[in-house]
Amino acid sequence: MKIQRITLPNIKNIVAIASGKGGVGKSTIAYNLAVNLSKKGYKVGLLDADIYGPSLPCFTGIRHKPSLSEKKFIPHFVNGLYGMSMGFLLEKKAPVLWRGPLLQTALRQLFQDVAWPLLDVLFVDMPPGTGDAHITLGQSIPSLQVVLVSTSQQIALEDTMRCLKTFQKMNVPILGIIENMKTFVCKNCGTESDIFSGENMEALCQKEGLSFLGGLPLDLGIIQMTNQGKSIDQNVFLEKIVNRFLEATHI
Amino acid sequence: MKIQRITLPNIKNIVAIASGKGGVGKSTIAYNLAVNLSKKGYKVGLLDADIYGPSLPCFTGIRHKPSLSEKKFIPHFVNGLYGMSMGFLLEKKAPVLWRGPLLQTALRQLFQDVAWPLLDVLFVDMPPGTGDAHITLGQSIPSLQVVLVSTSQQIALEDTMRCLKTFQKMNVPILGIIENMKTFVCKNCGTESDIFSGENMEALCQKEGLSFLGGLPLDLGIIQMTNQGKSIDQNVFLEKIVNRFLEATHI
Repeated sequence: MKIQRITLPNIKNIVAIASGKGGVGKSTIAYNLAVNLSKKGYKVGLLDADIYGPSLPCFTGIRHKPSLSEKKFIPHFVNGLYGMSMGFLLEKKAPVLWRGPLLQTALRQLFQDVAWPLLDVLFVDMPPGTGDAHITLGQSIPSLQVVLVSTSQQIALEDTMRCLKTFQKMNVPILGIIENMKTFVCKNCGTESDIFSGENMEALCQKEGLSFLGGLPLDLGIIQMTNQGKSIDQNVFLEKIVNRFLEATHI
Repeated sequence: MKIQRITLPNIKNIVAIASGKGGVGKSTIAYNLAVNLSKKGYKVGLLDADIYGPSLPCFTGIRHKPSLSEKKFIPHFVNGLYGMSMGFLLEKKAPVLWRGPLLQTALRQLFQDVAWPLLDVLFVDMPPGTGDAHITLGQSIPSLQVVLVSTSQQIALEDTMRCLKTFQKMNVPILGIIENMKTFVCKNCGTESDIFSGENMEALCQKEGLSFLGGLPLDLGIIQMTNQGKSIDQNVFLEKIVNRFLEATHI
């Protein structure tokens, strides 16, 4: 099959946030990383590529269709981000009964049929797994880079390693791994409990020759703020992730 | 496209455990529900249909290929269950770079090219989303029934409702919803914190005319036991789910 390249001359860096396993907090991390970078003065976009389970409409509260200009969608500008999601184009509760080929076409449109402005970085919030979306982007965007998100749960790590190898097979560079939901802090006594008691992520990164970009605890505050469309500021964990991300990308 | 029906005369009930959103504990619940039913004397199978992120090899520690008899795979028998997973057939860390059509073929094989014994119920642990796997099963297994798993997080509920409508559109009956990760219990002081502080799942079920099949807390014990291939016994929450499931299915 001939691969049609997607070219986006306006965008300096295209970074997929991927995980293999779903529910590890990929979208929450993508959103907060993007908003925090924009607060530092970078021009940032967020493309929500999880067509079956879009999260950007939920985070931002925006549900209406973007306007059109010269046959291209104008991305919504919210919380300092240029955002685009299939969720802006579909009815809220509508099921998406699309098989793979239709998904590929829809995904391409989110890149090519959107009037992306000049951006330092466009984050792509990937669907879970290593399916059609991953192959399509890996093969058609030559400048694609990847950040992986995982918990330390054994099963999540296996999926993450599989996702890692999928991208490596397509020669897509991996910027590093972010660990999520490492601990839970009790609101009553402040005790920090390991949730998954799994492998040490920093040690694993060293073993695999990957950069460890930092970690976030399972924080009720982060969940609530993100659900209300707010981003987390002055969070020491997130600040560390943002700085390590900037070092890794040389943006 | 002509739909080829999958017929499984040996199996009385085929129940998909689905969620829309990944990482809500679908596989953990499918595994523990299956093992607990088998302990009650039912003949139970578990088909791990998450081809991109199989969990059964991780839960059971089984990684080797099933043996063949008359060109059919003999499912592994472990912890009282007849289990089959694409993870038994693939190398542990191998990436699965399959587009939709190949996935459909693989999925059909997990049903048809396996020598399933006489079973009261075969649970199908679905991949997240509402993609190829959901359409394939919904359209080709006339007796399919569905149990949905969700957290009360707003974004998980939206995905769950989308998944619900996907199955309803294909006239697949929904047995009910199981809520996961409702609370976290501090190991130090025993304080129970709501994790997602989202919608009341029982009230939502009433509103949507669905059965509420019970809920499980985020329990470090359950995570650790499941990771070690053990199932949870004498757990009051799980016991309630098992009983409500039996009522819903009339098995």
